[in-house]
Amino acid sequence: MTKQQIAVPNVHNSQSNSDIQEGYVVGADIGGTNLRLALADHEGKVIARWSASTAGIRDANIVVNLIAQGIDHLLQQASIPRSALRAIGAGAPGVTDTDAGVVIATSYLLGWRNVPLRQLLETALGIPAAIDNDVNLAALGEHSAGAAAGTKDFVFIAIGTGVGAGIIINGQLVRGSIWCAGEIGYMLLPGIPDAPVERGQPGALEGVIGGEGIRTYWQAQWTEAITTLPKEATATQIFDHATEENSLAAQILDRAARTFAYAIYNTALMLNCPLFVLGGGVGMHPALIEATQKFLDQRNTRAKSRLAPSSLGADAQLIGAIHLALQTAAIA
Amino acid sequence: MTKQQIAVPNVHNSQSNSDIQEGYVVGADIGGTNLRLALADHEGKVIARWSASTAGIRDANIVVNLIAQGIDHLLQQASIPRSALRAIGAGAPGVTDTDAGVVIATSYLLGWRNVPLRQLLETALGIPAAIDNDVNLAALGEHSAGAAAGTKDFVFIAIGTGVGAGIIINGQLVRGSIWCAGEIGYMLLPGIPDAPVERGQPGALEGVIGGEGIRTYWQAQWTEAITTLPKEATATQIFDHATEENSLAAQILDRAARTFAYAIYNTALMLNCPLFVLGGGVGMHPALIEATQKFLDQRNTRAKSRLAPSSLGADAQLIGAIHLALQTAAIA
Repeated sequence: MTKQQIAVPNVHNSQSNSDIQEGYVVGADIGGTNLRLALADHEGKVIARWSASTAGIRDANIVVNLIAQGIDHLLQQASIPRSALRAIGAGAPGVTDTDAGVVIATSYLLGWRNVPLRQLLETALGIPAAIDNDVNLAALGEHSAGAAAGTKDFVFIAIGTGVGAGIIINGQLVRGSIWCAGEIGYMLLPGIPDAPVERGQPGALEGVIGGEGIRTYWQAQWTEAITTLPKEATATQIFDHATEENSLAAQILDRAARTFAYAIYNTALMLNCPLFVLGGGVGMHPALIEATQKFLDQRNTRAKSRLAPSSLGADAQLIGAIHLALQTAAIA
Repeated sequence: MTKQQIAVPNVHNSQSNSDIQEGYVVGADIGGTNLRLALADHEGKVIARWSASTAGIRDANIVVNLIAQGIDHLLQQASIPRSALRAIGAGAPGVTDTDAGVVIATSYLLGWRNVPLRQLLETALGIPAAIDNDVNLAALGEHSAGAAAGTKDFVFIAIGTGVGAGIIINGQLVRGSIWCAGEIGYMLLPGIPDAPVERGQPGALEGVIGGEGIRTYWQAQWTEAITTLPKEATATQIFDHATEENSLAAQILDRAARTFAYAIYNTALMLNCPLFVLGGGVGMHPALIEATQKFLDQRNTRAKSRLAPSSLGADAQLIGAIHLALQTAAIA
């Protein structure tokens, strides 16, 4: 199904361009554990929210049915007629062919392969749909209404369990020739292993700055004698305790920040983009941002890189999905 | 002068859009040692060439006068009236603000700072001019008529004395927020020094794959006992002799290719572009391309990177300048 153009239902042409001004759109953030929806007006203002668990659900049809139910709730909640709904934008955590409207592959949590998500949504909902990768949508969110509003070039980097980037150059998302742009978790940098890793395994950079990599490293180094933190600590807890010099937590933060600074430095050299917006629970940690910025500032480059935490936080992807829906409604 | 819009002479609007079909353009490749010009028809076909030495010349006005003289020769040579000339495209080896038409900074050979090259050319020649960085123009050349013809996303990497890249994404040059995109010579990679370097000094990657870095490393390692090559060898001569296993030349090639593969791998992860076109005397060496491709092929990535030598060779920048002139003539 990859790269193949999917037949687009008539709904794409059933709306006039000006209709969106009196209409509404839905943004959907599809995750491996949660589905979140938001109803927004023609300016992107969120009117109502709805969420449900997706734990254990792998069938895309069931997810689409959940979305349809959620939209019913949202419309009822906001007392808006179904006919006022203009479009939906949806993001899934995986490689997404935005031209064909197909999710090519997600992680094991959803386990999707070549899911024609746009078609499923349009058939189920009777409105135009557009889809993209979750990190790209978060970048779109920060660009339209967040920490990167008003900038032309920036990179959004999400660090949670893993690491991913959404790149906006000249105001446009860079998606890549086979929809894989921004896979920076596999970057090779000084001081980290450069052995080839299997696809699906954590990348070299991911092992040092990703939540799972940090947790694993912590457990391997942990002894009762050197810290008051428990062996079962998360990356953000470890960063919280990185204030005491030379402690294990401080060493881990130092290693993460130094390596992350290398990755940002390399990216800034390549693209000459001045702003990096950091999202995700690990990426937004103030200690990581401060320590990484310090390493970056030590380098005498023509173009300085500025780090900023996501201003939309956990909503970045949802706001991006709304923005995508607004674009879709405008051209439908 | 940076970023400041320069008043554009009336010549910009004195031609009709269809005029280019009966007209000609000039491409100029301005270097620290040579100036090369080519006259081309409306399809970009080169009709005549001219060149002159720029050794010792640092004054931009003298370079522009040389260009004017060269154009006189070209028109005479091809028996084409001056009135048939529609535009000029020119590239200099430095950071170039293409909006303002200003060369912000070149290396010491020309030593330019904030030279309003577009204005100087338009005033001297009475035709519309456009300018860009030399590596960007080479990328444009390979994209319009070379090894990257027909591709949407690729990176051109020039390796001569130093290293630079021109990036084309979605068919458009990525120039960067302050015109410095593609400075990959400073990339930080496994196995090479990560200490901050002063601006103007060779970068970390440059030290390993650039002609000057290889030459310096060779001289430091050289003893009469281990090689028949002289101490004063160039990078391409060293690569020519890298066929004997475990020789110093083979070690240097191995180190260069491994490090270069890291840089390409990181770039491909970020941009997901499938093609890297290699230019410059060192970059086009078959031994380097073969060895680098071998390292890349060892990595199990979703997106494979293909290396190809420049098909335009030393003409890439000149052909790019012609292409830029054609674009300029079309919109003038």
